[in-house]
Order: sequence, then C-alpha cells, then structure tokens
Amino acid sequence: MKYTHDSLKAFTVKVFLKMGCPEDQANLAAKVLIDADLKGIDSHGIARLPGYVRLWEKNMIVSSPIIEIVHETPSTAVIDGGGGLGLVVAPSAMKVAIEKAKTVGTGWVSVRNSNHYGIAGYHALIAVENDMIGISMTNASPLVAPTFSAERLLGTNPIAVAIPAGNQPPFVADFATTTVANGKLEIMKRKELPIPTGWAQDFEGNPSTNATCVEQGGALLPLGGTREFGSHKGYCLGSIVDIFSAVFSGANYGPWVPPFVSYLEPSSDPVGKGIGHFFGAMRIDAFRPVKEFKSEMDRWITRFRNSKPAQGEKQVLIPGDPERATCEVRKNNGIPLLPAVVDSLTTLSTKFELELPKTIE
Amino acid sequence: MKYTHDSLKAFTVKVFLKMGCPEDQANLAAKVLIDADLKGIDSHGIARLPGYVRLWEKNMIVSSPIIEIVHETPSTAVIDGGGGLGLVVAPSAMKVAIEKAKTVGTGWVSVRNSNHYGIAGYHALIAVENDMIGISMTNASPLVAPTFSAERLLGTNPIAVAIPAGNQPPFVADFATTTVANGKLEIMKRKELPIPTGWAQDFEGNPSTNATCVEQGGALLPLGGTREFGSHKGYCLGSIVDIFSAVFSGANYGPWVPPFVSYLEPSSDPVGKGIGHFFGAMRIDAFRPVKEFKSEMDRWITRFRNSKPAQGEKQVLIPGDPERATCEVRKNNGIPLLPAVVDSLTTLSTKFELELPKTIE
Repeated sequence: MKYTHDSLKAFTVKVFLKMGCPEDQANLAAKVLIDADLKGIDSHGIARLPGYVRLWEKNMIVSSPIIEIVHETPSTAVIDGGGGLGLVVAPSAMKVAIEKAKTVGTGWVSVRNSNHYGIAGYHALIAVENDMIGISMTNASPLVAPTFSAERLLGTNPIAVAIPAGNQPPFVADFATTTVANGKLEIMKRKELPIPTGWAQDFEGNPSTNATCVEQGGALLPLGGTREFGSHKGYCLGSIVDIFSAVFSGANYGPWVPPFVSYLEPSSDPVGKGIGHFFGAMRIDAFRPVKEFKSEMDRWITRFRNSKPAQGEKQVLIPGDPERATCEVRKNNGIPLLPAVVDSLTTLSTKFELELPKTIE
Repeated sequence: MKYTHDSLKAFTVKVFLKMGCPEDQANLAAKVLIDADLKGIDSHGIARLPGYVRLWEKNMIVSSPIIEIVHETPSTAVIDGGGGLGLVVAPSAMKVAIEKAKTVGTGWVSVRNSNHYGIAGYHALIAVENDMIGISMTNASPLVAPTFSAERLLGTNPIAVAIPAGNQPPFVADFATTTVANGKLEIMKRKELPIPTGWAQDFEGNPSTNATCVEQGGALLPLGGTREFGSHKGYCLGSIVDIFSAVFSGANYGPWVPPFVSYLEPSSDPVGKGIGHFFGAMRIDAFRPVKEFKSEMDRWITRFRNSKPAQGEKQVLIPGDPERATCEVRKNNGIPLLPAVVDSLTTLSTKFELELPKTIE
C-alpha cells in the first residue's frame, strides 16, 4: 500500500498535535520523520510514530519542552532538550552549532535530556545549506555488545557527515556503527531467514544466526562483526559517539541509555538525563574559499563515481546516492508501507480519532 | 633480537640528523616513530625508517621545512607542512589546534604538503595532556578500493580519538578505516598463509585469499569487508578522513595521494601538495567541568571493563589497553625487531656510517 509523503506527513502532524506539541514543533517533527521514509530508511520513519506515542504515554517525552543552552564558549554549547522529541531538539541544537560556526569558524554542541532524533543525516544536511560541513551523532537503546562482551552496553550509535559539493550533490554519509541496524534483523525475522554470522550474538556472546537472538537477550555486533574483521574498530566508533553525545552533556550513556524499543525497560538508576546527541558545523571558508573547495569536491566525487567497477558490479556509489534515488522515486510514486505499519497507524487513528491517510493505489 | 627503546631512538635521531633535520626536529621525529614500537604497532615504527630515507633521497621529504599557517579563523587553521616529515609537522599542527581550543573552546587544523606522520594516536594524546579530547587523522597511500570498485582510491586513512579520564588511563581509539592494516597482510605473507575473505581483493575486484594480492594490483577493503557486513560504512569513514585532511587543506586526495610504499610511484598529475592530515582539540571544560567529566569517564570505563565477557573471552578491553600493556613490557624488556628490519637498519648504518644499536640479549 502506497501513500503520498504529504498525506503521511499531515497524519503525523496531527498525531504530534494530539500529543500536545506546539504547531511549529509538530510540523518540524513530522518533516524530519517522513524524510526517513522518503529516503528509504523505513525503520526510522513513520513506522516509529507509535513508539514516540508510547514513550509520551509513559511520560518519557515532554510534548512542549523548554530547550536551553546550559553552558557555552564561542565554539561550543551544551543544550538541555527539556525531555522533548529529539526530532525537534536536534534541529534546534544544529542551529546553535551553525550560529557559532558563523562567528568563530566551527560550532560543536552536545545535547542531554533528549529522545530519539530520527535519521542522523537530516540534521547534518542543515549545515550544508549554509556552506558548512555538518556532523550529527546520537546514542541509542543499548543493544550492542562491545568486542569480547556478552552484555549489551552500546546503541547502534549512528554518525552522519554531510559535505557540500559544487555541481555534484552533497556527500552524505549516514550509518549505524554496527554491522547492520536492528531493522535488518526484523526483515530477516519476517522472512523467517537465518542471519549471516557476524551480525549478532546470543545472550552468552556466542555467534548466532537466529534473527530473534537480540530480542532474546543477545546483541547486535559493532561494525567489523568479529575481532578478525575489526569489530574493535566499530566498538571504538560506537563508544566515541556515546562519549561525545552523553559524557560531554550529562545524558545517560552506555547501558543506562533509556531504550526506544518496547521490549526493554529504562534503567532504574540513571546516570544522566535522557539520551544524548552531538552536532558539529564547520564553515567551509574557515579552511578554504568555498568555490575552490566545491570544485575539488566535484573532482573527488567524479573520480570515485567513474572508477572501474569490481567484477559483477555496475558503479561505485557516492555516499548519499542511494537515498537520493529513492527520494526521487517516492516523491513521484508514493511511499510504500508494510501491512504491520499500516495496522499500527490504524491503531493510532482510532486512539486519537483521526482519519487514516488514503492510499494512492 | 631485542633493543632498548633508548638505543633505537638514539639511532633514529642520528639518521634524521644525517638527512639534515634540525636537532630538535630529529629528536621529536624519533620520539614519535619509536612510540609506535613501544606500543606494539611495529608496522609504523622503526621498520619505516628506511622508507623515510628513501623518500628523502627522491626529494619527496624536505628535511628542514618551513611550517606555516596559511589561513585561519578563531577555531580553525590550514597549515602548509613545507614538505617536511609528518612526524614533525603533525605535533606542530596539533599545538595550533590546542592553542585555538584554549581561546574559543575547540581548535581544528587541516594540513597539506606533509608526509607520513607515524601513529595517529600519538598526536591525539598531546591534547589529553591539556585536559582536551584530541582527534587525529591522515590520508595515506592509495591501497583501498571503495565498495563496488576494482580500483584503489583511498588509503588506510586512520582515525585516532583520545579522551582523558580521572583515575583511569585515557580512552585511546586509533585504527585504520580498513578491515586490517597492510601490515597484517605482510605478516601472513611471511608465514605463507592465506588471508581470510573480506580482507582484500584482486585487481579485478574479486575476493582474494592471497596475501600478496595488493602488491599485484589488488586492494585492501574498507572496514566491514563486504557490502553484506557494512563495507560501505568503512568506505564512508575513509572518505571523510580523506576530505577533511586534503580537500579542506589543498593536499592530494584519493588516488592522487603520493604513496609511502615502495612499489607505487607518485601520480604524474597531482591535485594538491603532499599528503594531508586533520587534527581537532576540544577543551573538556568548554562542555562541562573537568572534574565532573573525568569522574563520569571513570564510571564509563569501569562499567565497560567489568562487563560480563563473552563465552571463551577473558575481559572486555578499553581502547588503549593493549598498547599500554605492550608499552609497559617493552619499556622493561626491550623492543623485539624482526631480522628483515634489522637488515634494513644495517643497510642504513652502512649508508650513513653509523653504529648499529646493540641488542640487549
């Protein structure tokens, strides 16, 4: 079943309004959320809307938050998100980073007391519109075991870096610091297929090919998968995201991060406030004239895209290419939703007495 | 054969002096180089000394460089390394980042016209001594194929992030953005063993288990190894390092990076000057009182180190632990060198009429 992105966005706005969000915040939050669906990152889009509602019902999301700077220097700030939707707190923190970059060249903002912020790349791209490089990262539900650990101590802790180019579209890296995101396991589970060794482990830390092993107390694995293939590097990356996002800001870190997934309960002895994010904005002309930089980026991108493909492959992709292609298709042809997602939206429409978006096919 | 680190350092100083380095720079360069041997990162230590000499003989290293800031804002700078040893240029660039952080909270420096800078972690740790987080990265010889590419377009492009703690030693991540560094292939080649699938590919982009495949026109693979295990993420990381280090600064990037390995020739149509590095320094108290931060880092580290190990494993390690342990042992018991490395030092000792360091066993 397919829907226009406008109709999904309008429905999402109404749900956030029912939660008590101010109108501008409901609109912004819906825009960030549906951006994930447009780009094909279905796990982070409207499929998560019931999750936000669930956390709000548990008083874990403040619908009208006070977002404030609690500490700052010319190039840095710590922001308290007031327990609000990360979808709203994050763009506001990125704006602070951008303003600081305008003044002193770069801006760096660590955020506490926030919630899930959608796709990391959305926020990084705000900087690109300002001729800056944007960096965005967040910690997340503890589902990942460090190398050699049986316990889940980290989230999928994504990193996004968006870099402007000239005639070419921007370079947009946006990835979980694990072998795969949790959504990939859900897909394999639905298809009743085993998962490859190196994606996840069981509750004792043994390699597992069972797609439900994480729900059963197992863990996702850091990028690299096993020690032999460099999982200690993925563990480093996830840890850096955790520390920049939460130890800098005073948010919860490691196994204390309040979970988004419904099968985990928040820690009874939190070490901070909410979850944490980290944002950076670097003005291009703080390093080099914008025109020069963009023309070199065009050359970089062109050289990589036109390199000889490996046997059996069509073309080398530039980070951001697949999402841009999906976005183009879905803007024209609509966004497909799985039956399970439609069901969960139907439940929301009943709960809030809202009309369900109409399918376009 | 084992040597004291002092004797290896003294020999290295003499070689750099013979190359025409000023005394303070020869001392600094030797200190950075031998730090790799002390920490057990043998591929980046004195084993590379003949490589530096070779580049100097080819007029690709300036032994008495003019290192200067060519562009700056309160939080950023671009430095031209004057074609000098990266071992000298890098600490000087990190010093600039630290000074900027003292003034406005953070400092970010991109460097062009430099050469190989030793281990990334050495430079990041300079910031830690100043109660700052240190970040260090560099591009390198094009030996890595992006996902779906048959061509080598990136280096092993390492990233180091060093974070101070309180009673605990610092968190020091320092890793190549590939599955394994080139040195691992050399070890397997010496042992005449096949390499695991996912480490490297042949010249057409097919997976290879041949430890000499990279020398024969093949390539190392980005962290993740294959698309199924997230090699596109490693490709993103290597690209980010390349762009921050070289497109920001005007150094050579991608396949144009002048190679350190002897079996590759520099590009005949360079797009910039030398190789590039990128450094960051973030003052802890630009985000949070130092004491608070360090005490939370102690809790972070303790929680991770004491987590339940996976079946068959002893303990979860904190990034930096293995290098610290090796350093302790080698400071007391000496640094072991392979016969091939001793041979290459013997050649240098003849060339420069220097006495070879004495073994301690």
